[in-house]
Amino acid sequence: MSVPTKGLILFGHGARDPDWAAPLREVRRRLQTQMPEARVELAFLEFQQPDLEASVRALMAQGCNRIKVLPMFMAPGGHLKRDLPHIMARFEASWPGVRFELAAAVGTAEPVLAAMAGHAADLLRD
Amino acid sequence: MSVPTKGLILFGHGARDPDWAAPLREVRRRLQTQMPEARVELAFLEFQQPDLEASVRALMAQGCNRIKVLPMFMAPGGHLKRDLPHIMARFEASWPGVRFELAAAVGTAEPVLAAMAGHAADLLRD
Repeated sequence: MSVPTKGLILFGHGARDPDWAAPLREVRRRLQTQMPEARVELAFLEFQQPDLEASVRALMAQGCNRIKVLPMFMAPGGHLKRDLPHIMARFEASWPGVRFELAAAVGTAEPVLAAMAGHAADLLRD
Repeated sequence: MSVPTKGLILFGHGARDPDWAAPLREVRRRLQTQMPEARVELAFLEFQQPDLEASVRALMAQGCNRIKVLPMFMAPGGHLKRDLPHIMARFEASWPGVRFELAAAVGTAEPVLAAMAGHAADLLRD
């Protein structure tokens, strides 16, 4: 069995203001500093480009055959619960040679919850 | 000079799905574990209750005269940049004895960026 070539998509909501994406770009920059070989793309649900399919294609063009999508959302709302699984199922049907995985919303990840609580505590101490 | 009595509001976007607030409730729970004396309320921009003013009133009823609002948003979009400063200014005019402060979006805080990047790296390693 060959080793899979992994890729990650940081999938944000997007906003009219292009600066909205700055924290996502910063997460990508830090990730690439930690893992210079990491294949990471941003994608947006609305207002900003690229969309999810464009970033999936970009990762496949880099040879990725295992693609994780990390929703850069505080919590799972309708978009994540209802729409995203359908989109992922469509990708799986279109590209059967690629394994797609949808991660939980970043705001529900243990280290992120801990960091948010710690930051909130710092604000109260300040 | 008397010591200020501080309060913190975790201010989220809100969603139709009430489960959306679970990570915010979890941050509050962790914060109160770390700082049992902390006065912390949740508030929501839309879809969910309480709204920001209701939570400001709840903190004032607990004696708070210094209230920080931490936007539980990934990044600052139109709501935070445009609407929230006006709302805060209205609070300041209504309650001159209370000092209000608007913190940066939680997704732009250094420890949260670090945690998101670390979590993304873990997903790529998995």
